[in-house]
Amino acid sequence: MMIIIMKSDVRMTEISAVIVRIEDAGFRVHLSEGEERTIIGVIGSGAPIDRDQIERMSGVERCVTVLKPFKLANREFKPSDTTFPIKDYEIGGSEIIIMAGPCSVESREQIIETAIACKEAGAHILRGGAFKPRSSPYSFQGLGKEGLDYLAEAREVTGMPVVTEVMEPSLVPLVSQYADILQIGARNMQNYALLHAVGKSQHPVLLKRGMSNTMEEWLMSAEYILNHGNTRVMLCERGIRTFERYTRNTFDINAIPVMKQMSHLPIIADPSHATGKWEYVSAAAKGAIAAGADGLIIEVHPRPEEALSDGVQSLKPEKFEKLVEQLKLVAEAVGRTIRNPS
Amino acid sequence: MMIIIMKSDVRMTEISAVIVRIEDAGFRVHLSEGEERTIIGVIGSGAPIDRDQIERMSGVERCVTVLKPFKLANREFKPSDTTFPIKDYEIGGSEIIIMAGPCSVESREQIIETAIACKEAGAHILRGGAFKPRSSPYSFQGLGKEGLDYLAEAREVTGMPVVTEVMEPSLVPLVSQYADILQIGARNMQNYALLHAVGKSQHPVLLKRGMSNTMEEWLMSAEYILNHGNTRVMLCERGIRTFERYTRNTFDINAIPVMKQMSHLPIIADPSHATGKWEYVSAAAKGAIAAGADGLIIEVHPRPEEALSDGVQSLKPEKFEKLVEQLKLVAEAVGRTIRNPS
Amino acid sequence: MMIIIMKSDVRMTEISAVIVRIEDAGFRVHLSEGEERTIIGVIGSGAPIDRDQIERMSGVERCVTVLKPFKLANREFKPSDTTFPIKDYEIGGSEIIIMAGPCSVESREQIIETAIACKEAGAHILRGGAFKPRSSPYSFQGLGKEGLDYLAEAREVTGMPVVTEVMEPSLVPLVSQYADILQIGARNMQNYALLHAVGKSQHPVLLKRGMSNTMEEWLMSAEYILNHGNTRVMLCERGIRTFERYTRNTFDINAIPVMKQMSHLPIIADPSHATGKWEYVSAAAKGAIAAGADGLIIEVHPRPEEALSDGVQSLKPEKFEKLVEQLKLVAEAVGRTIRNPS
Amino acid sequence: MMIIIMKSDVRMTEISAVIVRIEDAGFRVHLSEGEERTIIGVIGSGAPIDRDQIERMSGVERCVTVLKPFKLANREFKPSDTTFPIKDYEIGGSEIIIMAGPCSVESREQIIETAIACKEAGAHILRGGAFKPRSSPYSFQGLGKEGLDYLAEAREVTGMPVVTEVMEPSLVPLVSQYADILQIGARNMQNYALLHAVGKSQHPVLLKRGMSNTMEEWLMSAEYILNHGNTRVMLCERGIRTFERYTRNTFDINAIPVMKQMSHLPIIADPSHATGKWEYVSAAAKGAIAAGADGLIIEVHPRPEEALSDGVQSLKPEKFEKLVEQLKLVAEAVGRTIRNPS
Repeated sequence: MMIIIMKSDVRMTEISAVIVRIEDAGFRVHLSEGEERTIIGVIGSGAPIDRDQIERMSGVERCVTVLKPFKLANREFKPSDTTFPIKDYEIGGSEIIIMAGPCSVESREQIIETAIACKEAGAHILRGGAFKPRSSPYSFQGLGKEGLDYLAEAREVTGMPVVTEVMEPSLVPLVSQYADILQIGARNMQNYALLHAVGKSQHPVLLKRGMSNTMEEWLMSAEYILNHGNTRVMLCERGIRTFERYTRNTFDINAIPVMKQMSHLPIIADPSHATGKWEYVSAAAKGAIAAGADGLIIEVHPRPEEALSDGVQSLKPEKFEKLVEQLKLVAEAVGRTIRNPS
Repeated sequence: MMIIIMKSDVRMTEISAVIVRIEDAGFRVHLSEGEERTIIGVIGSGAPIDRDQIERMSGVERCVTVLKPFKLANREFKPSDTTFPIKDYEIGGSEIIIMAGPCSVESREQIIETAIACKEAGAHILRGGAFKPRSSPYSFQGLGKEGLDYLAEAREVTGMPVVTEVMEPSLVPLVSQYADILQIGARNMQNYALLHAVGKSQHPVLLKRGMSNTMEEWLMSAEYILNHGNTRVMLCERGIRTFERYTRNTFDINAIPVMKQMSHLPIIADPSHATGKWEYVSAAAKGAIAAGADGLIIEVHPRPEEALSDGVQSLKPEKFEKLVEQLKLVAEAVGRTIRNPS
Repeated sequence: MMIIIMKSDVRMTEISAVIVRIEDAGFRVHLSEGEERTIIGVIGSGAPIDRDQIERMSGVERCVTVLKPFKLANREFKPSDTTFPIKDYEIGGSEIIIMAGPCSVESREQIIETAIACKEAGAHILRGGAFKPRSSPYSFQGLGKEGLDYLAEAREVTGMPVVTEVMEPSLVPLVSQYADILQIGARNMQNYALLHAVGKSQHPVLLKRGMSNTMEEWLMSAEYILNHGNTRVMLCERGIRTFERYTRNTFDINAIPVMKQMSHLPIIADPSHATGKWEYVSAAAKGAIAAGADGLIIEVHPRPEEALSDGVQSLKPEKFEKLVEQLKLVAEAVGRTIRNPS
Repeated sequence: MMIIIMKSDVRMTEISAVIVRIEDAGFRVHLSEGEERTIIGVIGSGAPIDRDQIERMSGVERCVTVLKPFKLANREFKPSDTTFPIKDYEIGGSEIIIMAGPCSVESREQIIETAIACKEAGAHILRGGAFKPRSSPYSFQGLGKEGLDYLAEAREVTGMPVVTEVMEPSLVPLVSQYADILQIGARNMQNYALLHAVGKSQHPVLLKRGMSNTMEEWLMSAEYILNHGNTRVMLCERGIRTFERYTRNTFDINAIPVMKQMSHLPIIADPSHATGKWEYVSAAAKGAIAAGADGLIIEVHPRPEEALSDGVQSLKPEKFEKLVEQLKLVAEAVGRTIRNPS
């Protein structure tokens, strides 16, 4: 369903050409001739027509699509919230889920120590990167397979499910063996080969928003995963890139109510990346819960000044523990709960 | 205090020239010759040196300024929070202040009816535009002086203090007679003649952030006002312009903790402009309070579908009343209160 | 003329309410009921309807406006290029106009020396700021009235017309006595009181694009001036604010062909602000001419390392002279000319 | 080499801790105690220190890195321009290279017809996508392997070398068999697994800038490829994402002189994506050459209104031919040439 606005100086032959094209595709046409513009409405159903193609036809000023381009992620087609369990926890329900852990898995001791501290502080799910996307080829790139092994050990010790990033299609089977949730990082939000691979895996996915992707593009990327029948997808708002320089990213908190309205998928906020400085993480985390987020993913490191990545935005376990206490109050204020980890 | 990084192929004569310039201005120099770069530290005090001028000198790669360019707004120089009374309310204290009302004053009846409804719902201060900045010369530009008269009447009826926008220096005296708080709109954040005028007026000011101004520029604009000895300045975050199109602006909630850290001035959030759609206003308002805002300014209109401006982002009084109830819970969760209007 | 897209679950009463509203305003309605959406076309003429108001009506999903909101600046309504003379030069014609001079007028000697050098190098019009908008209240704010006097003297000596910025409505009469062209700076693009004032002045205007204003908003600001019957308006692209940090602004060169298509007004490029570094000015200037700009405004300073503002982006006269020689070749390559100053 | 700025209220023990950390890594320290701030300079060489780690240490306000983070791409380390041959053409030399062809390979006939037309019009290299990254899973995704076969045929018929996109690491060997140049698309600029794969392949690479990546990040991505000893890398500016909506992207023409200054790698401009509308492609293409680009990549389609992707931004062969004629004049004006295809 589409509306085609013709140019002010359009000729009858141009209008006819558009109509023929549309009817050929199986649609019906609704012609509306105003004083200033002729408008062609496309109705019914037919073979897919590309908006682009129509906009290139002679005499056409622009096309307006009436429907959103995403279907499976669209709340119009599935009005009820999507929920699913991860271990004992329900994602997308009335309880708020807290994921916490270091940016990178740095050693066996570090991840186990941090996991224990996070769980004691109230976190439900353990985060930690084994494969790390880094702007520089000279930076620490993660421990890889070794990091996955340590994560598995930390899971065994604490009972916490694990979320970790997968960066390439060929590693999806391996990472899926270790991770309870596969994370798609911001830089890979439009890495379609990877989206297909995690879609096929049927594993739960945390899909981070690209740093300059629109909410519509974000839902289109979710669509790639959903299209494989993999419905266990969480959206994760982690800040967008703007002109502002005092913070690493700009936390687009508007995305929380917008996604809740547009889509049925759960939405998680990442206040660590969204601010980029530990001093601001608590404020952003509380804001996210008050605005309706279904969960948080927060960087915690026992000694941030020694972290091999993202130390500047990591909370120490004591600060994190205090934050969880405050989050419980905020959650309650908006009719939700944060239960103690099991 | 400044650090000057010289180019890798710098010559001794270029280094000398920079040193002479700096010492001429009365500063001392600290020379540090590394293998890869020579660095010149500027220490002590002297006549102001423009970073730009130094960066244009031969052999200079770049200059780094060590201190923030704002002084009066800087928390380093005034560690305690700035608070001041507006009528019976204290701005910047432990109580959260709610300003509400229509985008534009449209008629005597409209503004009085809305003021009464807002107060009943829990608002402390009445907002309403008499002079309206509009992108189009063909849009409703506000009732002007007549609007101010209606605002005065609404204030008399309800006892609510009034915040309203002033758009040009020559109108500051007039608007000051009617308004308890002068609003500087986003488009005028760098209208320096206007900043000087409201600075001189010694009237309380609500300074909105420009839609694409950095937090640093915002504080520099506050500095223009503070520099006149007018210390009753509130900062107002109202959303910034980004690539995202589902919302009118992107609410930069990070600005709340950042401003609290950088500055001693109170910070108010405007969830109506920050989202641009009434459906998202509640989420953004709750997020702002949870993140530490000192107050809110919210658009309320009894019949938004008839509003002459910004109806899409205005709440109906009933929705607003419900929101205030929820805000009280969120405020409490973060250790603050919203008291009933007096 | 407008298209209203109703929600998927719209009720008949909601559709009726919209129709009544539109017909009340004097328009006719064209109803198109598809399987998925009902669409209401608004045809004919009537009292202005605000898109916002309709979007707030129950059952409405969104409105699409068919016509551009600017009229006087729109090429559809005035197909031929706007041209007008400034002294012996024609703006907007086949000849390319070069404006050059220092960011700020700093002294009598400086502006006269620079004006002579610029003219010798091939510039037609002299630029120089007497009133300077500065982010910091502690920076040099320009010589004010004294600067205007020096500009007048430089004009007398060289015969060059003068373009200089006016920053507040009350100074328009004064600045108009001295300036051949009134410049509206980027920060004031939406300072409507100022736009009205320069509109009324009937003086030629150089309207800079705001650093984060869309091209549509820019043309709407031009509309404010044109609406006073002042048709001698030049648009000036001076770079927009983006996330990129290696340059001060991002030169939106696309604006040149877009403005040429959308509007009949002349377009000038400001490569000095658009790049923010003198090293890149030549490339941007040549690019602008090749892309179809009608003129350039370039910062030139005899001793940039001593400039009181924007030294980093100023060319020395010798570099500027070389640039003009290169620009002549580029102009010729695209069928235009740069004549020697008279 | 790094400069560490300590907080105003720093304690001696905090300063000592930073010094110990730095000396432990093998560096020397240069202490500079000013009235307002203590500054620690890091000199000499040692084990890599993460800026992040230092910024998390107690008492540290911020760190400034003195050197650019890219090395192999840095002109400081390789002053002369990188040039390399593709068939008979030299990339990065005095001759400007034009790549042209359809967005997608749609059929055997279409690509051969277009290739012939492009070559006749003056193009040197054939572009055409076999694997297409598309925002929507419901859009045409390219012909895949079949498309590569058609490209090979078109190459055989015309003698034109081929540039085509590769989207996943596992396909690099296959695509390398067909392509003379591997294109990394904007969405994959930070797909590090893919960058490693094309680096290892030792095949020439066209590296598109991500739509919201800084120039520094872009060079860091080039660094990933160069680090494998693959030095045949071209940078491709294709527009960045901003708030502007009249064009699909904002062509960051500043990137051309900046990259020429910062790096020795050739830079290609893509005016089709940078504008997103065929009407603006000619202006942007001419601007790019005038600003110093080493080549262009332009979308050409014999029947844009039938194109399966990006028809709106494709030129028809006749328009393209006219453009090449104009480009030759612009190239000459800036001292370069566009030779006829061989």
